[in-house]
Amino acid sequence: MLISLDFESKDAIYSQIIQQIIIGIAKRELRPNDPLPSVRSLASDIGINLHTVNKAYQHLKQEGYILIHRQKGVVIHPEGVPKADSEYKETLKQTLRPIVAEGLCKDLSYESIAALYQEVLDEFREGEDEK
Amino acid sequence: MLISLDFESKDAIYSQIIQQIIIGIAKRELRPNDPLPSVRSLASDIGINLHTVNKAYQHLKQEGYILIHRQKGVVIHPEGVPKADSEYKETLKQTLRPIVAEGLCKDLSYESIAALYQEVLDEFREGEDEK
Repeated sequence: MLISLDFESKDAIYSQIIQQIIIGIAKRELRPNDPLPSVRSLASDIGINLHTVNKAYQHLKQEGYILIHRQKGVVIHPEGVPKADSEYKETLKQTLRPIVAEGLCKDLSYESIAALYQEVLDEFREGEDEK
Repeated sequence: MLISLDFESKDAIYSQIIQQIIIGIAKRELRPNDPLPSVRSLASDIGINLHTVNKAYQHLKQEGYILIHRQKGVVIHPEGVPKADSEYKETLKQTLRPIVAEGLCKDLSYESIAALYQEVLDEFREGEDEK
């Protein structure tokens, strides 16, 4: 899996790294126990600061996406991410609310907002079917 | 419309202000030309720093949600927000991707992710029907 960063994006670099690894796991391009590059090598590969990669990895570790072994290095968490509970579902809705609101303010219809969401879901589902 | 802030949230306060005003506009609780409190009075009402409110208002102004008149004060933009173009739709999908990915990683099904999104859409639509 390649990590590609957009240096012009409004999203911080560490946040882009987090997002891409989570997307990689969701698309099953990254599987439990798969190795990730070390902080040092990822930083040098993409030409960014060690601390930026470290910040991303620490977040991913804290959320249960990866394990950081002193010896074996960084791997996708062998037991998977903690499953969604009802609190998480509430948080997810909380996250979606301003996004949906923005679309509505910009005159998108309910249908077209639903359709865009469906397109994103389908991207992941298609990846699924290929495996 | 009341602005209620969650000081324990991971979202920054200025970002919560932005989100709530956008949600208010989407729900038609805030309509074109409706006045908003001045930076000073909102800051003092909710007990936060002037700069935090100012940062939120500047963002809302830049995105076309509000107008800041020196004399008439702050109002919801009379002409509405710039409409969504195809670039915006791409950005929206870009925003949704990591959110959907996180849900999938946490073992939510495609169906339940779609259902959560629908619930959020319905919240807005219900508000619509009441008016």
